[in-house]
Amino acid sequence: MSNQPIGIFDSGVGGLTVMAAVRKALPNESIIYLGDTARVPYGTKSAETILRYTEECLAFLAGKNVKAIVIACNSASAHALPYLQHKFHLPLLGVIEAGVEAALRVSRNKKIGVIGTAATINSDVYAKELKRRDETAAVTGLACPLFVPLVEEGWLDHPVAFEIAQHYLKPLAGGGIDTLILGCTHYPLLKNVIQKVVGDDVDLIDSAESVAAALQKILTEKKMPAGGQKPFCQLTVTDQTPSFEKLARRFLGEEVPAVKRIVF
Amino acid sequence: MSNQPIGIFDSGVGGLTVMAAVRKALPNESIIYLGDTARVPYGTKSAETILRYTEECLAFLAGKNVKAIVIACNSASAHALPYLQHKFHLPLLGVIEAGVEAALRVSRNKKIGVIGTAATINSDVYAKELKRRDETAAVTGLACPLFVPLVEEGWLDHPVAFEIAQHYLKPLAGGGIDTLILGCTHYPLLKNVIQKVVGDDVDLIDSAESVAAALQKILTEKKMPAGGQKPFCQLTVTDQTPSFEKLARRFLGEEVPAVKRIVF
Repeated sequence: MSNQPIGIFDSGVGGLTVMAAVRKALPNESIIYLGDTARVPYGTKSAETILRYTEECLAFLAGKNVKAIVIACNSASAHALPYLQHKFHLPLLGVIEAGVEAALRVSRNKKIGVIGTAATINSDVYAKELKRRDETAAVTGLACPLFVPLVEEGWLDHPVAFEIAQHYLKPLAGGGIDTLILGCTHYPLLKNVIQKVVGDDVDLIDSAESVAAALQKILTEKKMPAGGQKPFCQLTVTDQTPSFEKLARRFLGEEVPAVKRIVF
Repeated sequence: MSNQPIGIFDSGVGGLTVMAAVRKALPNESIIYLGDTARVPYGTKSAETILRYTEECLAFLAGKNVKAIVIACNSASAHALPYLQHKFHLPLLGVIEAGVEAALRVSRNKKIGVIGTAATINSDVYAKELKRRDETAAVTGLACPLFVPLVEEGWLDHPVAFEIAQHYLKPLAGGGIDTLILGCTHYPLLKNVIQKVVGDDVDLIDSAESVAAALQKILTEKKMPAGGQKPFCQLTVTDQTPSFEKLARRFLGEEVPAVKRIVF
């Protein structure tokens, strides 16, 4: 048993969907969330810069005595996790493995689509991981750079969101995918629009729940679940704008805890 | 006469439109451009963070022995210029004053619209500066957060760009403005779409040329123009992605000089 908190890191507010899933699956656990809102987005940056920023953020969380860290950001999971896995002496979980596992479990024909930021798609990490686990998997990856700003602007059901989704997802038509991985924390908020475009026969994979389940499994294996405490939840960000709370509520779907700002 | 270079600072690549205007107006001047591409965009950040990042970037340029600095970024001009004006002992020019001057010169009815990022519009700096110079000015400011990602995605004439512009600019209809300030370096690339939405009777103000003219005036006054040298042009960025050169060419409209990356 361990009452140390869990660290959740994201480039911004998108990872709050992961935090919500973790709180639901593990209601006794305390959580320290760090969103690098001053330097968001990561999805347009180079691998080197993503790695540098991620390392700085994980070091902050490790310094808070967390017992495990979830990297909720896909771009950071893609470019930083493999290098940082052995640098921090505690379990590090990314969203990619969780998403890949869920997709392979759900897909019948192993024709799988992946959508994400330019950084995530260019890394090719989803395709590599899917093929490593199932060499018959046929993967189509598509970058959808306008999805993040659309979500941040709150145009979740706007006709423009539908048109943009149609444009980006056109290459999937006729390819016969039966599963689509939402490879960015922002995309689950566009679920309705994306589902309408790809059709009801395609299963959408949101890795928030999968990563929460993976975390639960690790904590059980390592005999580290919390117990007998009143859990706390701390939101930490590197920049706080007037729109932050509105955005946070959109992602968290509940009351937003007090927010602390730190400066790197 | 001074052959010291001119510094141009922007949060990213958008300021290259200003660099192009400066090169055209002052072909003998050497230029060192700094784009803070690792931390772009500034327009969604808080005033405090914008100020901190801008100060760091200007200190870099000042260390390169520049004779004047142009802050091409509207968000940085709005939130940082007033505080940094006396901190650096060399002329600092922002784009806001230049845009305001041009708008008041062009407008007949002094009903003026301003579009920009959330940070720029929330600062209210354009309205304040317009009214300070002409108290009869009636100003309508509108934030257009999706314009920057649209430009970076290259959807300059896409039907979606037109729809988004229609949505954002709707509050201007019937207001009788005759002048619209493009208060963000990215927006001139959407000129066609914006002009179509607001109609041909509205003059669009792009501050790149105005700020180049203001720079020329200051250099003449201070007897500091360059002469008798072969000017150089150096591009410096804080992050370099695969898409950088493509984007740079879009903004610069000509061959992109060699790019140097620095790390803060």
